[in-house]
Parts: sequence; structure tokens; C-alpha cells
Amino acid sequence: MKQYYAENKDRFIDELFNLLRIPSISSEPEHKADMYRCAEEISGLLRKAGADRADVMETEGHPVVYGEKIIDPSLKTILVYGHYDVQPVDPVDLWKSGPFDPQIRDGAIYARGANDDKGQSFMHIKAFEYLTAKGMQRHNIKFILEGEEEIGSPSLAKWAREHKDMLACDIILVSDTTMIGEDTPSINCGMRGLTYMEIEVTGPNKDLHSGHYGGAVVNPLNALCKIIDNLIDKDGRITVKGFYDDVVELSAEDRAMLAKAPFDAEEYRKFLDIDDVDGERGYSTPERTGIRPCLDVNGIWGGFTGEGAKTVLPSKAHAKISMRTVPNQDWKKIAKLFEAHIMANVPKGVRVKVTAHHGGNGFLIPISSPAYKAASRAIHEVYGIEPVPNRGGGSIPVLAEMQQILKADPLLIGFGLERDTIHSPNESYLLSQFEKGMESIALFYKYF
Amino acid sequence: MKQYYAENKDRFIDELFNLLRIPSISSEPEHKADMYRCAEEISGLLRKAGADRADVMETEGHPVVYGEKIIDPSLKTILVYGHYDVQPVDPVDLWKSGPFDPQIRDGAIYARGANDDKGQSFMHIKAFEYLTAKGMQRHNIKFILEGEEEIGSPSLAKWAREHKDMLACDIILVSDTTMIGEDTPSINCGMRGLTYMEIEVTGPNKDLHSGHYGGAVVNPLNALCKIIDNLIDKDGRITVKGFYDDVVELSAEDRAMLAKAPFDAEEYRKFLDIDDVDGERGYSTPERTGIRPCLDVNGIWGGFTGEGAKTVLPSKAHAKISMRTVPNQDWKKIAKLFEAHIMANVPKGVRVKVTAHHGGNGFLIPISSPAYKAASRAIHEVYGIEPVPNRGGGSIPVLAEMQQILKADPLLIGFGLERDTIHSPNESYLLSQFEKGMESIALFYKYF
Repeated sequence: MKQYYAENKDRFIDELFNLLRIPSISSEPEHKADMYRCAEEISGLLRKAGADRADVMETEGHPVVYGEKIIDPSLKTILVYGHYDVQPVDPVDLWKSGPFDPQIRDGAIYARGANDDKGQSFMHIKAFEYLTAKGMQRHNIKFILEGEEEIGSPSLAKWAREHKDMLACDIILVSDTTMIGEDTPSINCGMRGLTYMEIEVTGPNKDLHSGHYGGAVVNPLNALCKIIDNLIDKDGRITVKGFYDDVVELSAEDRAMLAKAPFDAEEYRKFLDIDDVDGERGYSTPERTGIRPCLDVNGIWGGFTGEGAKTVLPSKAHAKISMRTVPNQDWKKIAKLFEAHIMANVPKGVRVKVTAHHGGNGFLIPISSPAYKAASRAIHEVYGIEPVPNRGGGSIPVLAEMQQILKADPLLIGFGLERDTIHSPNESYLLSQFEKGMESIALFYKYF
Repeated sequence: MKQYYAENKDRFIDELFNLLRIPSISSEPEHKADMYRCAEEISGLLRKAGADRADVMETEGHPVVYGEKIIDPSLKTILVYGHYDVQPVDPVDLWKSGPFDPQIRDGAIYARGANDDKGQSFMHIKAFEYLTAKGMQRHNIKFILEGEEEIGSPSLAKWAREHKDMLACDIILVSDTTMIGEDTPSINCGMRGLTYMEIEVTGPNKDLHSGHYGGAVVNPLNALCKIIDNLIDKDGRITVKGFYDDVVELSAEDRAMLAKAPFDAEEYRKFLDIDDVDGERGYSTPERTGIRPCLDVNGIWGGFTGEGAKTVLPSKAHAKISMRTVPNQDWKKIAKLFEAHIMANVPKGVRVKVTAHHGGNGFLIPISSPAYKAASRAIHEVYGIEPVPNRGGGSIPVLAEMQQILKADPLLIGFGLERDTIHSPNESYLLSQFEKGMESIALFYKYF
């Protein structure tokens, strides 16, 4: 693969850049046509790479690209999962080069989607191209590239159920996460789930003058802050009744094994320019983001937010709140518990409405499985060091559903790094990871 | 005045509408030219009304209109204070008719500024016109109409100091507040002060993926909610250290006298569509808004606030917070105490910046004064019922400064009503109050 990469690198970059130029932002309706355009582009790439089939298929939302090259039904089947949709790009003024104007700087590709997930999915298409070009394909290989991951994959599970037979596989191979470091390769052996909620607090039926009414009419902004502050106690634990009931506590041995993954606390703080971390008492930083649930306010707004001052006591206050969950918490149950807890503790003088946006469950990947072992061996060979198992904090909620529907475990070999700052301005992807990822994937097929 | 109003009503409405059509929004730089246009319009009205002098005078900010008709230096001098600037109009889509397209509906004038303060100031200009037209002026009458009240009058005190002699007066007459009800006239005998602050909380130096970092990196939105929730205790008291030190507690007699003002708790709740009020333990609703300080979040924002869901752990969170103060709290001292308290309680893992916007002190008006008695008599005659003294919750912070600079007490005879919903969409002003206000003002001059 190394040599094949060297011979075809310019074409690879060219093809990837064409993909990155398409603003396939799934959460913004004005990009609907771009979603189709991008799906077509991916479909074309799969065909060029050797797929016997590469179709843009309709769902209830954005289309899914399905591709395959079946060589022998008796062989093992790998289903590669990726997504061609990308995160929104705001705040745009913080990008050094346009989010859809891919550039190479300092050995990395800069663009929205360079890592998450176009750059990473593209590696799989090129690894596949390599296998077919060299006649080295020894498994049936299928591809799903969906267009809604960033908005919670609302259409995929239904579509997958309708095409269960077509998607039958032994493992689901995914590159959409990060490894610990360039010199510290890791394989994800578990992901947290996600429950995304929204709260609306209503006080008076209209905005009021805070001079006339302040002190007697309950201010929904003040009330919202109270509601949110009360969601986490002084030990960093979520106060929602029943929240921790289904959490599987890790054994001391398991915690010790995960703790072997290197973690530089000072580097972490310096990278983020924070003086301190904080979270659930009794757990380390990697544990807090890997094996423990948490609650984050993702957005909050209400009242006057422009330049200067306006003495308003507003009618409404809003917040978007998401909880990361761990096995065996069920996101739908968590959503219900959250809502029940909020509704049982509504401050005097206001009314509250709670909405569930979307969610998905966390899952675990056994490191004793043949798939994990093959990936470990491949990455060891490319990086020169055995990868550590890692419980990354990210979520690809739909994978838990796919695991259930297809009765196949996901294997997450992500080649992204923290420095890539996905979901933020100036997303990037190191060319060295791009190359090593491709090599690792090709070797995985050799060892699986 | 009643007959004069009847004879000239159409012209009055016409002139007022011309004034209301000018979008003199002091907080928005794009309306700078409108501020001058409006000041010129007011100046013209004063001259037409009989002023010997009516000038648009420069300040460090928006211009002030100064007018006067001095008839005999040995007579008492009344300085009428008002403001021609208006509040911003958002959310515009909630207005039934355009904010700067005055309409009459259901016996009221609807426009931004119809009450606050163009409608109310206009009554004084017309009462003055009546006196000069009928040769009934028995005092020296001066007018200040400023253009920055809604943004905290940053330029007025300095300008007033520079023109102290020109502004010399015995009382400062103001109509920029509300009375309890059409059938329950009241005169304001005290105003709360205001301290307007802004807090910025910074967590990580960039927006992060909440899956990767949630639970370990302190979320500035969560931290801001904690900071705000901790500002008020379970008894509704502000926790800022030293906050209540200078508050003058009212005697039982004073509280009993103010409690005579009618207040319909059920009507209040129905008008606002709230199930309950809440505030400082041990005080009634009128006391909480009249004689006690309070703290309101006026605006809060941070993170992702658009449609749908984005799993961001944002870098920053912001809030605008204002405190209403009572005599003898000093707003500058309160601002310092607030900042000190916030900085002494910064949650782990974030940094906080506190900024003071503006402020002004509260003040009291003795009801035994000749001015108060004259106003009470005049309003009694027009409304058929003696007005009650009222400690309204509003603030015109600059009046406390003017009281100090000119050594003259303000007298606040406001004719606005709660139904006028100033500072909100669909601001209005009853024609009946417009007329009765003018009559009351004219009679005030008779009895003072």
C-alpha cells in the first residue's frame, strides 16, 4: 500500500479535495442539493475503485451511498461505515482558509470534513482500490456512506432494517474517531452514547421592564440557571433520579488496563489553555471522558444579547443539554428520566417544556475478537508500536443500532488526532495519518 | 386645559405622530442621524409652544434639547426632564403595526415611544403651550429633553455640570413612569437605582467536541449557570458580600403607608399569565419591586443556539446581569462588590471577566414637599380621587445625579400604565391618560 500511495498520491489528494469542496452540511436545508452532489461523487469514487455496485439510495432524509464487491459468499464480509455529511462551519471568521477550500499547510489538509469524516472514509475507498487493483481482495467488502451522522442519523436505522439482507456482514469497520497520538496509536474499544435534550423555560407571557417587575416576577433566565446548576452535585454527579442505575461499573482490572494508555495531563491543559480540569469525583480525566457519563450544556440563550445594555426581564429562556451515556444506559430511558426529573423540580413561577432531540446508546468492543486482533496487528506493523485499547469519549450513536440490526460488532479504527479540532474552525487531518491509516486498513484486510 | 385639548386634539396627535415616526433608537449607531432629526423636531415644537429659547445642544453623545421661557427670575423655576430616545424594537415580528408607524387602536396610541417617553414628554410641551397661549405662566419653565436615557444617560451629567447655572431650578418635573391604574392614580415617591454588569466565562481556548471532552473539561455554560444560581439564596436574598450593608430598611409605619396602594395579586398574575410570583422572603410583591433590591439576568448566551443539535462544549459563555438598588446603596460600590464576589468564587477550570456597563442610584421624594402636594392636588382634581404615593420599581438613574448637581428634588408624575408594555413590542399609551396627564400638569402649575 505504501508504494501504491506514493505512486498515486497526487490523484488521491485531488479526488479528496473535490470531495471536500462540496459543502455537505446535513443540518442546513439550503445544502440539500450538495448532499446529493456529494453522494454522487462518492458513488463515482467507489466505482472507479473497483466496486461492482455503487448506488445513491434514497432514505427518508439525505441519501445513503451503498457500494459492494462480492467475490465469494462463503468468505467473511466487511461492511465499511462512514459519513459524507459534515458539521456546520460557524464561526466562519475564525477559519484561516475557507472551510470548503481545502489547503495543505504544515503537513496537514485543512477543510471541514478533512478528518470527520471525508478524509477518514476516503482512506477506506483507497485501501479498497489498492486491493482490487492488485487482485488482493480476500473478503466481501461493502460500503455504507450516510449523510446524516452529524444530525444523529435519523434515517439510517430504518433504511438499514429495510435492507438487512443486503447489508449482512461479519463486522462493521469504521474510521471516524481519534487515536491518542501519532506516536501512541490506539483502537477504540467502546463509545459513549448520547441523549440530546432541549429545555424551554417560560416566565411572564411577554418581555417585561426589569425595573418594574424585577424581584417579584420570576425571571426565566435566573430559573434556567437554577435548573441547570441543580443537575450536577458538588461531587460532579448528575442528580437526575435513576440516572446511574444501569451504568456498568468497570472492575479494578479493567480500569487498570485502560489506565495504561498514556495521558499527559499538563499537555492536555496546555492544549486547551485551562488551569484545571474538573468532573466526577473519584475518576481520572480519561475515565471521565471514556467510561463515565456526563452532562453538558451545549447552548443557552434568552433575553437581550446584543451590544450594550437592555433592562429586560424576558419571557423565555432556552438551553440545549446533552448527556453522554455508557453501557448499559439506554438513551430513551435516560431521556425520560431527565424529563421526569426536570418536571418534578420546576421552580416556582415558571413553566418548563422538555424536548428530546435524538440519541443513541454506547457500546463495547471485545478486544479478544479476531477483528480487534487483526487491526491491532496491522497498526502495530505500520506504527511500530502496539496500539492501546481506548474508551474514547465520542459517540456515533447509530452504530449501537446497526450492531443490533445486523448482529455484527463495530470495529473503530480511527486515525484522527486531537489537534485536528473536528467540530471547530480550522479542522485538519495530518497527511502522515492519512497515509498510515490507508496502510493500516490494507494490512487489516491481510490479517483478518 | 380640557377645552384647549378638545380644540387642538387633532393637531396634538399629528405633531406627536411626527415625533413617533422618527426611529430615535439611542443604542443603535445606524440611527445617529435620526437622533438629530428628532431633537430638531422637539426643538421646533418647543418654539411653537412659546419657548423663548429652544436649542439642540451637543454633548459627548446624542444631543440634548434645551428650551426655556423665563418670565421673572424671582419666581420659582421648574425644569422639565424627558427623553426623546427610545428602546430598540426587537422582536419586530411581534408588533401588530410598525413600531414607527403610529396607529390609534382601542383608544390608545401604538408606537415605540408612545408612552416612553415621547408621549409623556409631549404632554409637558402642550401644557406649556396652553399656559403661554392663555398668558397663565406663573413660573420660569425650562426643558431638558435628552437622547440617551435608554442607554443610561452617559453624557448628561457632564453636560449638566457644564451648564449648571443655565439649569438652575427649584424642582425637576418628570413624566416617564407608570401610575398604578387609571382609577388608581399614584405619584412616584422613590425610584430604585440600577447597576448593569456583564460576565464572560471562558473555558477551553476553542470550541470542543463534547463527546471527547465532556465530563473532564469544565463547560463554561455549566459554570456560568452555577455562578448565577449562587447569586441568590433560597430566601431570595442576593449573596454578594456586603450587598445589603447600605440598604435603608423601611419602618413599619412607612411600609404600612405604602401598602395602602391597591394591588390586585390575582390580576397581576393573570396579566402576566404566571402561576406564582416569588422573591425575597418576608416582602410583598409591591415591596419586592419598590423598596427592595433585586438581581436579574437580562441576557445569556453561549454555545450552539440554532435549529437542531450540535454537540459542542463551547469556549465561552456570557451573561448580562443587572441589580436594582435602593437608598442608600451606591451603584459604583455595588458594582465593585459584585465583581469582587464573582472573582472570589470562580469555579475550577474556567476564567471569568466582569465588566460594569452603567448605573445610577435610587432616590426618595418627600411627600410633604410643596411640589408633591401641588401634584397630588392637581391629580386629585383631574381623577376625582387622591393619588397614592408609590415606590415604583423603575429607574431613571441619571435623576439621582441631576438631584445632586442641581440641588433640586425630582418630582415624578408618570401617567403610563402597566398595559402600555414599554420596553416590549406593541408599546402603547391611552388617549385618556394622554389627556388627563396634560390637564394634571397644567393644574400642577396652578397649585405650585
